[in-house]
Amino acid sequence: MNLTLYIGNKNYSSWSFRPWLAMKAANIAFREVLIPIYAGADDKQRILDVSPAGKVPVLTDGDVTVWDSIAIIEYLAEKFPGAGLWPKDTAARAHARAISAEMHGGFGALRRECGMNIHRPIRPKALSDEARENIARVQEIWTGCRARYGQAGPFLFGAFTAADAMYAPVVHRFRTYAIEVSQPVRAYMEAMLAHPAFAEWTEQALAETLVIERFEAD
Amino acid sequence: MNLTLYIGNKNYSSWSFRPWLAMKAANIAFREVLIPIYAGADDKQRILDVSPAGKVPVLTDGDVTVWDSIAIIEYLAEKFPGAGLWPKDTAARAHARAISAEMHGGFGALRRECGMNIHRPIRPKALSDEARENIARVQEIWTGCRARYGQAGPFLFGAFTAADAMYAPVVHRFRTYAIEVSQPVRAYMEAMLAHPAFAEWTEQALAETLVIERFEAD
Repeated sequence: MNLTLYIGNKNYSSWSFRPWLAMKAANIAFREVLIPIYAGADDKQRILDVSPAGKVPVLTDGDVTVWDSIAIIEYLAEKFPGAGLWPKDTAARAHARAISAEMHGGFGALRRECGMNIHRPIRPKALSDEARENIARVQEIWTGCRARYGQAGPFLFGAFTAADAMYAPVVHRFRTYAIEVSQPVRAYMEAMLAHPAFAEWTEQALAETLVIERFEAD
Repeated sequence: MNLTLYIGNKNYSSWSFRPWLAMKAANIAFREVLIPIYAGADDKQRILDVSPAGKVPVLTDGDVTVWDSIAIIEYLAEKFPGAGLWPKDTAARAHARAISAEMHGGFGALRRECGMNIHRPIRPKALSDEARENIARVQEIWTGCRARYGQAGPFLFGAFTAADAMYAPVVHRFRTYAIEVSQPVRAYMEAMLAHPAFAEWTEQALAETLVIERFEAD
């Protein structure tokens, strides 16, 4: 097996969760290497030893090094065209890439104010208007996909795709920050939480003992 | 011609510049529709009429609507596999996608502090440490690509690719904010500024008369 995925702490590293989940759900075999982050001044150097961007996740495949969740997913989608990382239908695939890119580059307020912290006790938090707009837009995206593609399965495009993986950390955020959601959104979240690969990451995150003080007061 | 690209003001909309330039440089024919942004309260509604994400750029192709620069580029790369949007070599293509994703999701301080404003008189500006780190990383990315792929041409991967398009607004930022750069970076910027499609956008941006007060004091 040549594929190695370098990830950060499972409890906190939302960006690592995305390609890890995409690969697991698509049955792509890989070796995983966890580089603890938020652990001190040498965090960045330990990642730089693997990748010039100094950030996890990073995928290596022999001589090829790919970093950044969305680039890793595109690399894998090309290498494993039968794995179903993207929807087969052209228009659905374009839609999946658009909402994945929207997640990749946006929702800054939601990401800042509701950091992924899987072991956080479920409780609400006061949020900015901007974060509330982000939450409304995410619900609009999910609801729109479910209405359009829902007959083929419980995920955004029916079967599980990379677009679900891109939004997976938001499922945990909505859960732990006790965000009020519509019924279709709740049903989608339940399907995600029940997915075996999603549940596997969650279980491993809960087993981690590294606790980062500054995230815990939230 | 079925492809329509909806863009914002050429002087300010860095995200619109990216797919526009990628398409022009790849000789992909399209109709362009400029939706003036920063023009008042109904900005967002005019974009929502075209795209559910409420942001430019947006590409439509018959019934397909794709938004977000990187998703538009992937859509086009699939539709026009011979257009050279990504490098042909697998490792180079992975590298191009990684640095494009790094641009798409990162460099927040540089983007905030040095907004693209093509008609801005060239002068330096006091920058945060974070923006300076962004600038150093961009120079590292460009220099690394030029060292590795430079023999095949003056762009990041030799011939012009979507990765150049993703970094094109940074070329204008480095120029107008009088950022000090290394010689290889300067040579790359000169090649970009001289590219006919890059020059065409620049000329059209300079011809725009809509001036947004809040960007002009910068």
